[in-house]
Amino acid sequence: MLEERCPYCGATIERRRHPLLTVDIIIELEGEKPGIVLIERKNYPYGWAIPGGFVDYGETVEQAARREAKEETGLEVELRYLLGVYSDPGRDPRGHSVSCVFVASAKGTPRADDDAKACRVFQWEEIPPEPMAFDHARILRDYLVREGRAGASPRH
Amino acid sequence: MLEERCPYCGATIERRRHPLLTVDIIIELEGEKPGIVLIERKNYPYGWAIPGGFVDYGETVEQAARREAKEETGLEVELRYLLGVYSDPGRDPRGHSVSCVFVASAKGTPRADDDAKACRVFQWEEIPPEPMAFDHARILRDYLVREGRAGASPRH
Repeated sequence: MLEERCPYCGATIERRRHPLLTVDIIIELEGEKPGIVLIERKNYPYGWAIPGGFVDYGETVEQAARREAKEETGLEVELRYLLGVYSDPGRDPRGHSVSCVFVASAKGTPRADDDAKACRVFQWEEIPPEPMAFDHARILRDYLVREGRAGASPRH
Repeated sequence: MLEERCPYCGATIERRRHPLLTVDIIIELEGEKPGIVLIERKNYPYGWAIPGGFVDYGETVEQAARREAKEETGLEVELRYLLGVYSDPGRDPRGHSVSCVFVASAKGTPRADDDAKACRVFQWEEIPPEPMAFDHARILRDYLVREGRAGASPRH
């Protein structure tokens, strides 16, 4: 249960707690400088991250993915496929959130949003960079496997 | 925004509303009477439905899928794959819920839970039955396409 206080009388109100739904978008940038667009977080948890955010009430996960990609990188993305749903309760140290991770393509020049310190395009061989926030290094490794680009992984 | 009343002082409290996360499980029953396990709902919205329910805070979507399948049909299921994430805001008339739909296999005899009027095994050619609740007819049609069993669809 989640305990909150009534802002009027100060009483403690118990509410059932639910996991929050998010989207993350692995953006494949086409053009002169191709690669994957990642952002460097300004707020805790720190590190590089896949662009994303919360799904609003009344929007689909696909709408949320296009909106968050635009807000965080300035790019208009075309969704390619759903990579997976990541729901480990420990993946976000702030609380339980479940992410629908999309792979998308875009053209143009990404620019960092106010919430980010930086926005950078990474080549295949550079991902995942360190340090990464949340479980995003694992997500990027799953993505490399799915795309058949995991040959350089140091497993042997 | 969602308006709630403080149970102590009666003041109206505004809270940000979030979509709720659910799982649904298309259970492929093996054995003597193979088919897909569906339940008939006792509560609104009425009709046949794929077994499922809300994801609890602190559990993964995979754990929720195995738990809900067990609670609603008595079956221990093995998850095969994630069919998709269904998030149209109009899919549940009670409010915005987003479902992660899994395909799973199980052996044994399903039995209806207290929340269901009935629990029945449907053959391939019988699905989707009518009427179906939520967007579950669409989900089952997507499943038939994915499994290469949509040949009998009346598209031509």
